[in-house]
Amino acid sequence: MSQNDTPLVGIIMGSQSDMPAMQPCMDQLDQFGIPYEVKVASAHRKPAVVHEWAASAHERGMRVVIAAAGKAAHLGGVVAAYTPLPVIAVPMKTSDLGGLDSLLSMVQMPSGVPVACVAINGTKNAAILATQILGASDSAARDTIIQFKRGMAE
Amino acid sequence: MSQNDTPLVGIIMGSQSDMPAMQPCMDQLDQFGIPYEVKVASAHRKPAVVHEWAASAHERGMRVVIAAAGKAAHLGGVVAAYTPLPVIAVPMKTSDLGGLDSLLSMVQMPSGVPVACVAINGTKNAAILATQILGASDSAARDTIIQFKRGMAE
Amino acid sequence: MSQNDTPLVGIIMGSQSDMPAMQPCMDQLDQFGIPYEVKVASAHRKPAVVHEWAASAHERGMRVVIAAAGKAAHLGGVVAAYTPLPVIAVPMKTSDLGGLDSLLSMVQMPSGVPVACVAINGTKNAAILATQILGASDSAARDTIIQFKRGMAE
Amino acid sequence: MSQNDTPLVGIIMGSQSDMPAMQPCMDQLDQFGIPYEVKVASAHRKPAVVHEWAASAHERGMRVVIAAAGKAAHLGGVVAAYTPLPVIAVPMKTSDLGGLDSLLSMVQMPSGVPVACVAINGTKNAAILATQILGASDSAARDTIIQFKRGMAE
Amino acid sequence: MSQNDTPLVGIIMGSQSDMPAMQPCMDQLDQFGIPYEVKVASAHRKPAVVHEWAASAHERGMRVVIAAAGKAAHLGGVVAAYTPLPVIAVPMKTSDLGGLDSLLSMVQMPSGVPVACVAINGTKNAAILATQILGASDSAARDTIIQFKRGMAE
Amino acid sequence: MSQNDTPLVGIIMGSQSDMPAMQPCMDQLDQFGIPYEVKVASAHRKPAVVHEWAASAHERGMRVVIAAAGKAAHLGGVVAAYTPLPVIAVPMKTSDLGGLDSLLSMVQMPSGVPVACVAINGTKNAAILATQILGASDSAARDTIIQFKRGMAE
Amino acid sequence: MSQNDTPLVGIIMGSQSDMPAMQPCMDQLDQFGIPYEVKVASAHRKPAVVHEWAASAHERGMRVVIAAAGKAAHLGGVVAAYTPLPVIAVPMKTSDLGGLDSLLSMVQMPSGVPVACVAINGTKNAAILATQILGASDSAARDTIIQFKRGMAE
Amino acid sequence: MSQNDTPLVGIIMGSQSDMPAMQPCMDQLDQFGIPYEVKVASAHRKPAVVHEWAASAHERGMRVVIAAAGKAAHLGGVVAAYTPLPVIAVPMKTSDLGGLDSLLSMVQMPSGVPVACVAINGTKNAAILATQILGASDSAARDTIIQFKRGMAE
Repeated sequence: MSQNDTPLVGIIMGSQSDMPAMQPCMDQLDQFGIPYEVKVASAHRKPAVVHEWAASAHERGMRVVIAAAGKAAHLGGVVAAYTPLPVIAVPMKTSDLGGLDSLLSMVQMPSGVPVACVAINGTKNAAILATQILGASDSAARDTIIQFKRGMAE
Repeated sequence: MSQNDTPLVGIIMGSQSDMPAMQPCMDQLDQFGIPYEVKVASAHRKPAVVHEWAASAHERGMRVVIAAAGKAAHLGGVVAAYTPLPVIAVPMKTSDLGGLDSLLSMVQMPSGVPVACVAINGTKNAAILATQILGASDSAARDTIIQFKRGMAE
Repeated sequence: MSQNDTPLVGIIMGSQSDMPAMQPCMDQLDQFGIPYEVKVASAHRKPAVVHEWAASAHERGMRVVIAAAGKAAHLGGVVAAYTPLPVIAVPMKTSDLGGLDSLLSMVQMPSGVPVACVAINGTKNAAILATQILGASDSAARDTIIQFKRGMAE
Repeated sequence: MSQNDTPLVGIIMGSQSDMPAMQPCMDQLDQFGIPYEVKVASAHRKPAVVHEWAASAHERGMRVVIAAAGKAAHLGGVVAAYTPLPVIAVPMKTSDLGGLDSLLSMVQMPSGVPVACVAINGTKNAAILATQILGASDSAARDTIIQFKRGMAE
Repeated sequence: MSQNDTPLVGIIMGSQSDMPAMQPCMDQLDQFGIPYEVKVASAHRKPAVVHEWAASAHERGMRVVIAAAGKAAHLGGVVAAYTPLPVIAVPMKTSDLGGLDSLLSMVQMPSGVPVACVAINGTKNAAILATQILGASDSAARDTIIQFKRGMAE
Repeated sequence: MSQNDTPLVGIIMGSQSDMPAMQPCMDQLDQFGIPYEVKVASAHRKPAVVHEWAASAHERGMRVVIAAAGKAAHLGGVVAAYTPLPVIAVPMKTSDLGGLDSLLSMVQMPSGVPVACVAINGTKNAAILATQILGASDSAARDTIIQFKRGMAE
Repeated sequence: MSQNDTPLVGIIMGSQSDMPAMQPCMDQLDQFGIPYEVKVASAHRKPAVVHEWAASAHERGMRVVIAAAGKAAHLGGVVAAYTPLPVIAVPMKTSDLGGLDSLLSMVQMPSGVPVACVAINGTKNAAILATQILGASDSAARDTIIQFKRGMAE
Repeated sequence: MSQNDTPLVGIIMGSQSDMPAMQPCMDQLDQFGIPYEVKVASAHRKPAVVHEWAASAHERGMRVVIAAAGKAAHLGGVVAAYTPLPVIAVPMKTSDLGGLDSLLSMVQMPSGVPVACVAINGTKNAAILATQILGASDSAARDTIIQFKRGMAE
């Protein structure tokens, strides 16, 4: 889809422990041939790192951000506060409340600063949605999605 | 943002009764100068109408879809099944469960067919997110968002 | 109950992975001697297949449909949109929210298009309910239920 | 649909206070021309009355039962315990938990004794589902549903 | 506490599968020396058995009933409908909703017919509460409780 | 039921604002002729008062306690910690979570110290349950309940 | 308690619309004679303002922060990320989910960055808790609390 | 931070079975060099012990209390009723409702008696918050937190 390797999708997750659950996201983007970069940084433990990464994402060529976090999952909202890019939020499953806490912390964003929330642990879907967003204006990415949907339907 | 009036955002809602709650969505798109079309059709009562509208949306020039519905809110998922475009889902508040039913019916999409869910009754945010999605590749739309965020921050 | 093998009950499930949980449904219908057919197709990944299967079910001789799915479980509602037959919805247990998402997505159908929802993973009960529905007008099916209830009571 | 006035649908509700919310159920059956009878009796306050009504319903010509109740809503299950007929359960909205209590008390029936649960306060849908159940074997009732669905779709 | 073995507490559970979870209830009554009888019968599968057992409990000398059931747990309410005795309800843990369904089905009894609900799987506490109820008028039972509380406090 | 006015039921509520919701409790006891006393004291704001009242209740002739409170409703548990009497807990409806917080704070008592929980705002039922508990050993109180149930059934 | 007016408590709220609900917080601090400052700034709409305010709070003499916000309420966590001071989080009631979203977004903070969460709309309690925190080391503040508790107990 | 070993933090937990989950709390305080004492006592089973421990905590030199309990978790509120010190409440995860019961029982304290609630099983965070509270007035404790936050950020 792209002639070079400049990442179009920025993936950020709150903890290294989210990596295994996020693997299907990276795998799906690889399969679609969408270049991406991955960052591990907690909105609470490393706020300045997240701030800088988010604020500069669109200047570094990113067009969509995927933010995954659990519990009082603020990462999606914090990134959305600092970037004009669309932010896909992935609420991670939690061991006590099953991810209901992560989901409500992600999806119930107040007026003015939306995120695009997918299902609890919906990491593969985050990659598909990112590609659909790229495909809003990029016919190659849209064709990737059309082929993908055709494949599922068969 | 666009030289003509070809709608870039398709708004579909499950019931005429969702119109007042959706008004901030249309108002925000108007304010951003983003052309849109509006359709009222229930995924359950008029499935063929929804099917046809959704399947042809990208061919009619739409780049993003916003789908708003309440209760067992399938409209987002049904539209997403038929279009390669990104679908923003708006779960509507309900009188008995407060919208928890709408939210879970929208956001918990199974693997392969995501929607981009916003908050319960997050209708204004749906418009902002749609503009951010357009802005992933369109610098005019992105500038609109950058200006909008700057306005909020002051 | 029937002289031939024309299926009276159509069973559809959203994913092959629902098959083990649905086995008690088929076993119970077998025990009751009710002929059925089974289809695996996701409302989101294969909407056209589901559409065609649902819209033709009553013409192919089916009298009741059982639809099982999980998460944002639209299968019951989508099938109900396309068929005049009664649709029994089986919300499947999910690993994060325990099936509360499936349940609300199934049972909270908006006005005009009901489904008949059973318990989370209530797959055996779906078969019993299907037989009760056949028994509303068919005395053999009703006798099957009367015998079954008598057996339980002893 | 029927040549006489023998009720085909038995409606039972737990309290006289459920009557206004149930009115759309009776109105829809009237509109469909389905004869019905109405009983007000609590499963807890008048168990013998409910027992006798339920156990004799199919002998008095009923083919479907609709049971509406709120809070720890046992009426659906109690009726289902005593009749071989299919029982449609309508969980009523409650002032404290919004009807989540009624819903779970109705839908989560244990193995062996299903009810067909509709949405919280889904009283009109209960009438449509009852007609669909009659239509499983009665072509006139099915035609009523086909016409009804056609009307909604236009 | 009692000179003979006439059971003072009647224990009924909806399913043989509840027996292991109920064992601490019987053990605690044994430790307190309170005679009891145990019955396994589902309110839905064996309504007549439950009806008869409940209606005659006080005539057979029982003074308190403990009813344990899961899911749409009607057993407490059904027994309470048929007996003038106080009924302790034990909502059993469920594999999908953790027992929230059982709890709401038990505790939210409508006006006129209360049950005395204990915690999810609170089987030992049911025995203690039964003894406290006996102790409302029986000084030996009350002394048993006073000793028991003293033991815990040390 | 009693020859004198020594209170048999002790009613305690966490706040004066609970009084209107509790009125049906007092009315029902009046109607049954059961003498009671009423105390308003918060477990958190006046712990020593609650402690003393609870610890002496059985010595002052009380046989049952009814404790009503809302939110993080500890009153039932605190009273139960100090008295050997059976404690009926009434979780009060709350303006934000509908009383789910009160309910779980009341009913989920840990092992060793049960309360007898009734429905959210189940204040009339608390009075009936208290009378049933008195009736476990007092035939006059039991007859009162038998008459009451007969009245409801007619 | 303090000789001058240097604010010891910093109050920040996400929206001007939170002001009426927060008034009891300010009133209680006034009554205790604790100097405070008030800031209105959304963590999402004005992240840089919040960042700067939070990071400098302890240097400006503040000893405790109170952060109030609703929905996906990140304000508590965002402030806690930037300050070494203890942060009291007040989840605001919401019109759809009653504040369950605010509560989980506030209280479920991940490891390393706690907040001290009070009840939904627990604005007066936030002031009392702030004073207790000051009283951990300041005997005048502790005496204020001791007097306050004595007043409640009488 | 302190020249001697007088405990500054009092840790109380409802059951010996909470000890493993609480270990990270003690470990973190050890790492911070904050002296503490540990008590195991149930608010329900040993109310007098809890009462005495709580009422004397500030006189024995404690400045903050951490109270951990599960289910209908009253320990935080009971301790807060008896002490003028700030009380950090740790709701423990439960096997049936995941800790939602513990959380609501802890956090939803009524007006006048707050607790500072952390996340379900947020035991390490309780230690950090206790140190932040000490640091409100103690510069050594605050420096400990500043160093700790700096460590996380790197």
